[in-house]
Amino acid sequence: MLRTHTAGSLRAEDIGTTVTLTGWVDRRRDHGGVAFIDLRDASGVAQVVIRDEAVAHPLRAEFVLQVTGEVSRRPDGNENTNLATGQIEVVAAEVVVLNESAPLPFQVSTALDGTETIGEEARLKHRYLDLRRPAPARALRLRAKANAAARRVLDAQEFVEIETPTLTRSTPEGARDFVVPARLAPGSWYALPQSPQLFKQLLMVAGMERYYQIARCYRDEDFRADRQPEFTQLDVEMSFVEQDDVIALGEQLVVALWDLIGVTIPTPIPRMTFKDAMERYGSDKPDLRFGLELVELTEYFSETPFRVFQAPYVGAVVFPGGASTPRRGFDAWQEWAKQRGAKGLAYVTFTEDGELGGPVAKNLSDSEREGLAAATGAKPGDAVFFAAGKPTDARALLGAARLEIGKKAELIDESAWAFVWVVDAPLFKPTGEDDDVAVGEGAWTAVHHAFTSPTPEWIDTFEENPGEALAYAYDIVCNGNEIGGGSIRIHRRDVQERVFAVMGIGEEEAQEKFGFLLDAFAFGAPPHGGIAFGWDRILALLTGSESIRDVIAFPKSGGGFDPLTQAPAPITAQQRKEAGVDSVPKAPVE
Amino acid sequence: MLRTHTAGSLRAEDIGTTVTLTGWVDRRRDHGGVAFIDLRDASGVAQVVIRDEAVAHPLRAEFVLQVTGEVSRRPDGNENTNLATGQIEVVAAEVVVLNESAPLPFQVSTALDGTETIGEEARLKHRYLDLRRPAPARALRLRAKANAAARRVLDAQEFVEIETPTLTRSTPEGARDFVVPARLAPGSWYALPQSPQLFKQLLMVAGMERYYQIARCYRDEDFRADRQPEFTQLDVEMSFVEQDDVIALGEQLVVALWDLIGVTIPTPIPRMTFKDAMERYGSDKPDLRFGLELVELTEYFSETPFRVFQAPYVGAVVFPGGASTPRRGFDAWQEWAKQRGAKGLAYVTFTEDGELGGPVAKNLSDSEREGLAAATGAKPGDAVFFAAGKPTDARALLGAARLEIGKKAELIDESAWAFVWVVDAPLFKPTGEDDDVAVGEGAWTAVHHAFTSPTPEWIDTFEENPGEALAYAYDIVCNGNEIGGGSIRIHRRDVQERVFAVMGIGEEEAQEKFGFLLDAFAFGAPPHGGIAFGWDRILALLTGSESIRDVIAFPKSGGGFDPLTQAPAPITAQQRKEAGVDSVPKAPVE
Repeated sequence: MLRTHTAGSLRAEDIGTTVTLTGWVDRRRDHGGVAFIDLRDASGVAQVVIRDEAVAHPLRAEFVLQVTGEVSRRPDGNENTNLATGQIEVVAAEVVVLNESAPLPFQVSTALDGTETIGEEARLKHRYLDLRRPAPARALRLRAKANAAARRVLDAQEFVEIETPTLTRSTPEGARDFVVPARLAPGSWYALPQSPQLFKQLLMVAGMERYYQIARCYRDEDFRADRQPEFTQLDVEMSFVEQDDVIALGEQLVVALWDLIGVTIPTPIPRMTFKDAMERYGSDKPDLRFGLELVELTEYFSETPFRVFQAPYVGAVVFPGGASTPRRGFDAWQEWAKQRGAKGLAYVTFTEDGELGGPVAKNLSDSEREGLAAATGAKPGDAVFFAAGKPTDARALLGAARLEIGKKAELIDESAWAFVWVVDAPLFKPTGEDDDVAVGEGAWTAVHHAFTSPTPEWIDTFEENPGEALAYAYDIVCNGNEIGGGSIRIHRRDVQERVFAVMGIGEEEAQEKFGFLLDAFAFGAPPHGGIAFGWDRILALLTGSESIRDVIAFPKSGGGFDPLTQAPAPITAQQRKEAGVDSVPKAPVE
Repeated sequence: MLRTHTAGSLRAEDIGTTVTLTGWVDRRRDHGGVAFIDLRDASGVAQVVIRDEAVAHPLRAEFVLQVTGEVSRRPDGNENTNLATGQIEVVAAEVVVLNESAPLPFQVSTALDGTETIGEEARLKHRYLDLRRPAPARALRLRAKANAAARRVLDAQEFVEIETPTLTRSTPEGARDFVVPARLAPGSWYALPQSPQLFKQLLMVAGMERYYQIARCYRDEDFRADRQPEFTQLDVEMSFVEQDDVIALGEQLVVALWDLIGVTIPTPIPRMTFKDAMERYGSDKPDLRFGLELVELTEYFSETPFRVFQAPYVGAVVFPGGASTPRRGFDAWQEWAKQRGAKGLAYVTFTEDGELGGPVAKNLSDSEREGLAAATGAKPGDAVFFAAGKPTDARALLGAARLEIGKKAELIDESAWAFVWVVDAPLFKPTGEDDDVAVGEGAWTAVHHAFTSPTPEWIDTFEENPGEALAYAYDIVCNGNEIGGGSIRIHRRDVQERVFAVMGIGEEEAQEKFGFLLDAFAFGAPPHGGIAFGWDRILALLTGSESIRDVIAFPKSGGGFDPLTQAPAPITAQQRKEAGVDSVPKAPVE
């Protein structure tokens, strides 16, 4: 080792010891011909005193030094009680410059912790400097501790950590696959896995019984805010279990993770049905840090003269104190709603003396106006937003408005942690409801994925009413973020084939796409289920990061571009030829 | 849970308890109308007694059962002392068939442990059945324990587990990259990493100081025996260290790993220079489970009349007891040598009464014949193989012959574990010495990789004699297998540029290929070094497996083909179009 001690470990007890430290020049001050260097390493900072001006003169920020000297007590009045090493300083006898540093594109000193505003593009391009800053370094270190905490929970319960392949077969899981040309089979391609789903189910068929993996996954999605083309999930699967068993394990993991930041999560974590979540919060991932539930007014407006409210669903959400919103504020709400694909956002206001205002008011009947405060729970000074139309769309709009109101009206306790399990989700949804790639050609596609079991009540009858059938599935939501989800899987080949049939995946297509899974189910597959946690999202929550990019060592920026390595990049004609990209595949190997 | 107990956990203490077990029908025997089922789960096997013939009748091998019944003592004389549960049996009150099984392509019963011979293709195609067999299941479980053991060592020393990207930039590391088209940047490609090398060095520049990762790596190599397109390494990097520090850590890891199989590896592990290894064993990964060192005879034959031995190097290896090899045996040796690219394998024999035989003998001078036994150490009854020519080639041939002799003459103690660090390897080798993809256009290429530091003695002068310069590198060898290797890295930009220059990588190419690393080195890179362990190979050794395929959950077979999923496979025209495979890239983004 080039050092005898770490800088951050020195204490008053070390006074009188000769030590050798290594680290970076975090900050430098000069007083009367003496240089004071804050020497930083991974453990912290120690003050180094250099009395020889010739030695001190060339040292600049982020030079790498090896300093040998005696640990001394700081002169009276010079102690720094904010610093663990604040009682001591090291009086340098020898200083070796291990490496120099060019002037930095941005400052990284610990002294600036929390005060910097550096553009993300610059941070990512120089991520190796960004990570010298305290907050980004802390985030990566906490991530390692989260890995360890999860493994402690799982190892103690006989889970086996197993690596599954990443050069594999395209599996239909709702997003596009990244593909990789196979040079040794020109014209054929591997796919990078969207998740280890099929392999973990095969491991259950294999009798491994309890599997986990902190798994890299890949989705070639159109760029949305805070998505990464490669991401990590804690992937778990268990045999001979029911929903309650997986939920109990999930809660142990959540408790262990939040314990890392000193937060005790009470268990059992509450559960809410998908239907409840949609009706009360307009979302399948309700933020329960605040109330402000949606109010259903379909019945209330059943006789309404207002054409807009003559709809299969009418609902509302109260904006506490919203009556004082200026006209241009309400205009901005209209814009906001239009950007979400709605026609607008109908509203009324209740003045402080209870009078009804807003453009909608005049369209309502007298009795509707009269009862509206009671029906919505609005108080003087509040505004109320309405949505009418298809229940799904209208609730989604109100749910989104609820979140905006929560922020604007400061209803959210930012220090709170509100967890909820959302259960009893639908098994299927109509094809084309969002921009995911549909699997199969049917009118229905899986809400979770094609391997999710119907609940025991629906297992024999789901074909009769695919829109009503419930999935034996559970998502865990934290402060409005879906941080994990899973299901009890189909373990019987006949059930799997029936689900495929509803999704329009014929026998031939099923056999071609995942015949190996169906084949495996023929040989004694055990009942099994599991869960996957979005590891990047969880770490972003634990570290209070704005973005998952902050908890990934080397993240991509927009469009999957890496400002550091400049990946992706063109390949050479030779690479292209060798990779067999342009070869015509032979007939599939049998 | 569908069970109250695991099958393998039941003991005499449980007698009288009513339990519910789940598992597979491992074996079934019938005696006088009573069926005895060995019910297997991940914990082991318990005997289930079913007295109702109607219940027992349909149960076949690998059916999945849920059995409720009372734990009873086996009748006197029916105990099985080989089985942990051998004192008890469960008398079934209720049997639920959770799933059926079709007839198996091969048997998986624990009762057959170690007696099966199943073709590998069938095993891999039905890997989910293969893994029900005890040995393959044990291998995966040991692998998980190896992960945990390594992490214990590393976590205790403040190493931070960090994930590095796998969709990244092509890095020149001696093999071909797998490439991935980037749909959002049509015509541009990601590369899958051959190792996290560049990123772990960047993490050192970032001040993380101690990094590790059990990392998936990718090499698109021509198929050689026992290679996989994706493989795993335990990847470690440390700052402010010297060679001895990394070696010490490596030894702690090795000790912890072999401890898992009850073997205590003595430390320090011996070290040998690369030169010694080549001269004495003809290999940079000498198998030290046996002696049989090569004998250098260049001097001895300096005046030889035998044209073949008038060569820059002549060496020999003794084949103890080899004189009795029949003529067709020696012919086979000639074939063997030719397959390795040699012209043949010269040999002599010493009969039991000390007489010299073999085709070479008559070509030698009298004095050469006379002194040969003493010069080579051959005893009556031995044979001696010779190689003459370029030292590298001749030693490689003798080294390979030594291994063959070791096997044939049963010189290898199969229960032994012989570790050695091979140090002081050359920094460079001439381009084109093997079939790896050369990096750069120069006459020299890196033996380890382009980021390996010269030793302190060579750091200022390696350009003057690239063929002699030594690398600050270390490989760890176990029983003739390289199981890990690493080096102290270059941390100074000027040294890195000089190494690139020797390899013929010009400034522009260097900047284009890894400008980001050179840039990083400008901002205070600390001295650092590391090591990577071949995780698949280590697990194959620990489990006594013939192939690394046995320690990978879902390995590829020859040519990178997966018999289970049939990957790789053709993609659709739509996938191809979407992936942007055929787009012409725009000018590189700056």
